[in-house]
Amino acid sequence: MNQYWSDVVAGLAPYTPGEQPKQGGLIKLNTNENPYGPSPRVLAALGDEVADTLRLYPDPEAGRLKAAVAEYYDLEPTQVFVGNGSDEVLAHTFQALLKHEQALLFPDITYSFYSVYCRLYRIEFVQVPLNDHFEICVEDYQRPNGGIIFPNPNAPTGCLLPLDNIEKLLQLNRQSVVVIDEAYIDFGGDSAVALVNRYPNLLVVQTLSKSRSLAGLRVGFALGHEQLIEALDRVKNSFNSYPLDRLAIGGAVAALEDRDYFEVTRTKVMRTRERLAADLEQLGFEVLPSADNFIFCRHPAFSAPALSLMLREKGIIVRHFSGGRVGQYLRITEGTDEECQILTKTLADYFQALVSE
Amino acid sequence: MNQYWSDVVAGLAPYTPGEQPKQGGLIKLNTNENPYGPSPRVLAALGDEVADTLRLYPDPEAGRLKAAVAEYYDLEPTQVFVGNGSDEVLAHTFQALLKHEQALLFPDITYSFYSVYCRLYRIEFVQVPLNDHFEICVEDYQRPNGGIIFPNPNAPTGCLLPLDNIEKLLQLNRQSVVVIDEAYIDFGGDSAVALVNRYPNLLVVQTLSKSRSLAGLRVGFALGHEQLIEALDRVKNSFNSYPLDRLAIGGAVAALEDRDYFEVTRTKVMRTRERLAADLEQLGFEVLPSADNFIFCRHPAFSAPALSLMLREKGIIVRHFSGGRVGQYLRITEGTDEECQILTKTLADYFQALVSE
Repeated sequence: MNQYWSDVVAGLAPYTPGEQPKQGGLIKLNTNENPYGPSPRVLAALGDEVADTLRLYPDPEAGRLKAAVAEYYDLEPTQVFVGNGSDEVLAHTFQALLKHEQALLFPDITYSFYSVYCRLYRIEFVQVPLNDHFEICVEDYQRPNGGIIFPNPNAPTGCLLPLDNIEKLLQLNRQSVVVIDEAYIDFGGDSAVALVNRYPNLLVVQTLSKSRSLAGLRVGFALGHEQLIEALDRVKNSFNSYPLDRLAIGGAVAALEDRDYFEVTRTKVMRTRERLAADLEQLGFEVLPSADNFIFCRHPAFSAPALSLMLREKGIIVRHFSGGRVGQYLRITEGTDEECQILTKTLADYFQALVSE
Repeated sequence: MNQYWSDVVAGLAPYTPGEQPKQGGLIKLNTNENPYGPSPRVLAALGDEVADTLRLYPDPEAGRLKAAVAEYYDLEPTQVFVGNGSDEVLAHTFQALLKHEQALLFPDITYSFYSVYCRLYRIEFVQVPLNDHFEICVEDYQRPNGGIIFPNPNAPTGCLLPLDNIEKLLQLNRQSVVVIDEAYIDFGGDSAVALVNRYPNLLVVQTLSKSRSLAGLRVGFALGHEQLIEALDRVKNSFNSYPLDRLAIGGAVAALEDRDYFEVTRTKVMRTRERLAADLEQLGFEVLPSADNFIFCRHPAFSAPALSLMLREKGIIVRHFSGGRVGQYLRITEGTDEECQILTKTLADYFQALVSE
């Protein structure tokens, strides 16, 4: 603790993102990026923004982008908030809507950034255990709370909570905000956006990083009642007027407009997931049912850290999380079919070599 | 106040950025943008980043950019923090380094975002009056404080505090952080970066928005002792791992590397400033001495709101701030010489027409 630091700094436990390796030639299945590049229309739109107009500030309201998101989901632009990736949107959400006298609730196994935000904003929280199948049980959230947040499908488990259950949760919890973090919803779930006009305490958060192949551009958004959006806008406009640069706004609009490309690429990712899950099960892995663009699995006979290290030595990066109920699981991003085949072949060869020894 | 809002939301008074007009054809002298576009090398570097690699996350540490900034200022990369525009860098600075038991000090006439940050993070502050010449007096800051921040040159006044005075301030105030916000330093001042290695409580903040013509790309940075930088990194990594997208990192590196283009364009802006100041004085304006890329002036015979409105009707946007000691001042960004000549001609014609009536 340095004498110049504000009190909050020493208590922080910053989020550790997955490794972004400097060296090339690796098969990167560790940070849930899309194996397919962004739409050609996005690249064209970005090219248009590479111009002298970069000397000018962007639109602080990112009006074009809010309009594009609103049109995509058949909402009003006043029901849309946009930010620098869904992580920034979530950060503002924690400060603007989730800090109350009662504790915030989220699952014990979930996106590990949530507890980091709580420390940053000094928000009390309670981690609600998933059941033995790593599922969220709506009944477990029936207790006084200052807000509820979870990803759907959940990460890193991949488990999807059906929309009916989310509606039940909203009906049982009208007194505080419920945030559904849908970073992965386009890979197989039904979005809670359909409920936004009926529940004034529902906020849905999405990102263009995964299903739109734009992790490198930093665009996320939230959808909800305009009073919730106003709270986010107030915080954002007290923090940074222009979190989205001109390129991000232009590229994101094009990404939302190219629905054909989106359908083609997300379908490919979902098909790869089914093949990869089958191949891993063939190798003896226990694979959790996934609606994400990754698979969460464990092998009864091999430790996850050892498998992860072996794969890394072969040039394949996957992610595992230390400790607790998930300490023996690997999280494997769906790469291309070819990348996934190299992964399963590498695992098969490794297991075979051990048997032969 | 909505029942779902966190307590902090209702008390916010968000910053209002200068207008970004939707219509074209206006002469825009209201938000201190550079009249010249970014370096051609920046546009080339941005073009290189428009690629399939946008599917991948950026480097969360923006290592290339930290190295480029460090090299430019002959510091270590561990002395560099980067963010989404200097506004985001300042936001993290307020939370990480300026929230203490004693009140933060800043001038009564200064960048109006400072008090906005204080409300967001609930930081006590005291506004220290500028003297009658709108200058900062170092002696006025000799009182117990939890930090000191001001822009140098100051905004919207344009007044520069010489480096000797800043060093004196640092010598008299070793117990708290002193932040020098150098958004405009490249237009005529000496940077306090020269003092960073000698004062562990000095943080210097800069932006690529003005002198590098990149307001539309959102890149800012801070320079200081590595312990100060660590505090900023902890907060940033508890907020958003990737505030700089791939394009912003690549473009910013190229901007720092093209020193020739930087020298040519900033020199042009400074020359325009001297011409514009002389022309405005010729028209009867009182012009404060400026080291910024804008001029702060008032006319003894005409109200600032009326002049601003008249100019707007003629397609020229300037900025004025309501109330207090600066309520009769106009802040006029240095456009191209041609744009500034249209401005002074419009003012001259207006004054002439009134005389003829």
